[in-house]
Amino acid sequence: MSEFRQDVVTGRWVIIAPERAARPNDFPVERRRMAGGFCPFCEGHEDKTPVEVMALRQPGSAPNRPGWQVRVVPNRFPALQPEAGLLTSGAGLCRQMNGFGVHEVIIDTPKHVLSVCEIPPEEVQAALAAYRDRLLVLGQDRRIAYGMLFKNVGVSAGATIEHSHTQLIGLPVTPVAVQVELDNARRFKRQRGLCLFCAMIEEELAAGARIAAATEHFVAITPYAARFPFETWILPRRHEARFERRSPESDADLARILCSILGRMDTALGRPAYNYLVHTAPFRKKVDAHYHWHLEIIPSVTRAAGFEWGTGIYINPVSPESAAAFLIQQRGAV
Amino acid sequence: MSEFRQDVVTGRWVIIAPERAARPNDFPVERRRMAGGFCPFCEGHEDKTPVEVMALRQPGSAPNRPGWQVRVVPNRFPALQPEAGLLTSGAGLCRQMNGFGVHEVIIDTPKHVLSVCEIPPEEVQAALAAYRDRLLVLGQDRRIAYGMLFKNVGVSAGATIEHSHTQLIGLPVTPVAVQVELDNARRFKRQRGLCLFCAMIEEELAAGARIAAATEHFVAITPYAARFPFETWILPRRHEARFERRSPESDADLARILCSILGRMDTALGRPAYNYLVHTAPFRKKVDAHYHWHLEIIPSVTRAAGFEWGTGIYINPVSPESAAAFLIQQRGAV
Repeated sequence: MSEFRQDVVTGRWVIIAPERAARPNDFPVERRRMAGGFCPFCEGHEDKTPVEVMALRQPGSAPNRPGWQVRVVPNRFPALQPEAGLLTSGAGLCRQMNGFGVHEVIIDTPKHVLSVCEIPPEEVQAALAAYRDRLLVLGQDRRIAYGMLFKNVGVSAGATIEHSHTQLIGLPVTPVAVQVELDNARRFKRQRGLCLFCAMIEEELAAGARIAAATEHFVAITPYAARFPFETWILPRRHEARFERRSPESDADLARILCSILGRMDTALGRPAYNYLVHTAPFRKKVDAHYHWHLEIIPSVTRAAGFEWGTGIYINPVSPESAAAFLIQQRGAV
Repeated sequence: MSEFRQDVVTGRWVIIAPERAARPNDFPVERRRMAGGFCPFCEGHEDKTPVEVMALRQPGSAPNRPGWQVRVVPNRFPALQPEAGLLTSGAGLCRQMNGFGVHEVIIDTPKHVLSVCEIPPEEVQAALAAYRDRLLVLGQDRRIAYGMLFKNVGVSAGATIEHSHTQLIGLPVTPVAVQVELDNARRFKRQRGLCLFCAMIEEELAAGARIAAATEHFVAITPYAARFPFETWILPRRHEARFERRSPESDADLARILCSILGRMDTALGRPAYNYLVHTAPFRKKVDAHYHWHLEIIPSVTRAAGFEWGTGIYINPVSPESAAAFLIQQRGAV
């Protein structure tokens, strides 16, 4: 029997409908695959991207030349432009703002791999350090309110380049999806005196049924009201509002749990396309007491379709409890 | 240069970023394709579906036998179940409701076509009449607050069966995506004294730049803050809150404009996968003065990816103005 569940962080309702997983499908699931062709992100092709804004490099190597471990460049086809003014305008029912913002690409590795779980955790740790460095730099620009880190892997997750990379978009406003979480977390803190996410972590660790992995510093949860099959959130156990201010001693641990979850999804689902994204506090809002950063992983197993677009309610055919159990079973494989 | 735009109906912000596409139809679109295999929705296979709840049939033909034009059956793998009670429960941070609801499949045609634009408008009109009939029946069940009509066509639009069909889900609550529109429309009516949608139609007809098609009774608009390339809304010119109470004399006209837009999208984009959905008033809410039903068409050209999941802001690489112009160019082809 299916059920409606409400997510405590976002307020959104989902329908958990395990019966639908059994339905026959005329169409196969799309796996990540190598398309081949020339790759502008591979080592040695540095002149095929815009000039780098940052890189982790071997001592003595020159900018925009080989010898790097992680490389950050402006997006060649940016969604937003830093040279646009912050102008707001509109006539009649039309309201608009100039497309001001920053759009960077973090090339996770010089190697042509399709997912960060195909490189060792030590190298993933370097990419995560670059995430932090870029957020710290972006936060110094007072025109930028929010930095959204996200990753699209595979065609059905929206990727257009297969070489593993992450994107960072600096926005002039706090995006609505984050604002909703901030509002709910603020209300919870006011009513109950503690961080909503800390309370959720404690409750989930006590229940156990939705814990996909746990390490010294982090816990990976398949959320109670997951929108998508195998959706998994990684949260720091300790209260931390800002990804870029997190304690550096947990860096290696974060790389390990991320690689572990992505690796298990690869085994469980056959190398699916996926997205992940970081929800962290807006740069200059005083939300540190009640917000708690987290990384959300969404494998591309089901898609938002007519019902989801029409209602805002997601139908998830895999219960978070069975997703967690299935991911735990893959442990030996990683 | 890209720009942020805000949708007046939903309040959501989008980024219109034409730099990211060279031409309006420059996408690696996944075309609809025939997968083949046995089809439970074809005429003659009536025993392969649950027993029909309604059908438009030739006089003298027997239920669950050939001789139908449109056939409605319960979904064999329902997201919601009518036998579930309306029970709400929850412990700690977990809130849930039983999965009460109705989930029906409207088989648009006995012919094995992939899209309703592959059958003549007269036959589409029969399917639209069945939409109305089922909504009228659903509205009599006082446990059901809302009827969501939607269509998934092609694998990348979430379809699992290729034979053209529509789904109807009866929900115990008004879904959030509709509630947001109701709230904005109510506020607009209170402040400005008229229907938000009527005002939008008037403004768009005067501007002209986003009109993809117009007939006696309907207008097809590529909305100012469209989330997706070629997203198109069909609205009745006359103020009508409820799809199922619309004036029957416009039925043929609705079928014509729907087929025309879908046909032009097929020509412009090469038979893409798509979704459409109907936003109509909740069954028993007094919203008739300020709400205005509409049908939203979303071709599967770009996908929601990491940025969209993380922010709630959609990046659309095709401006609604160029989408409208491009659709109008295809007129001769239909």
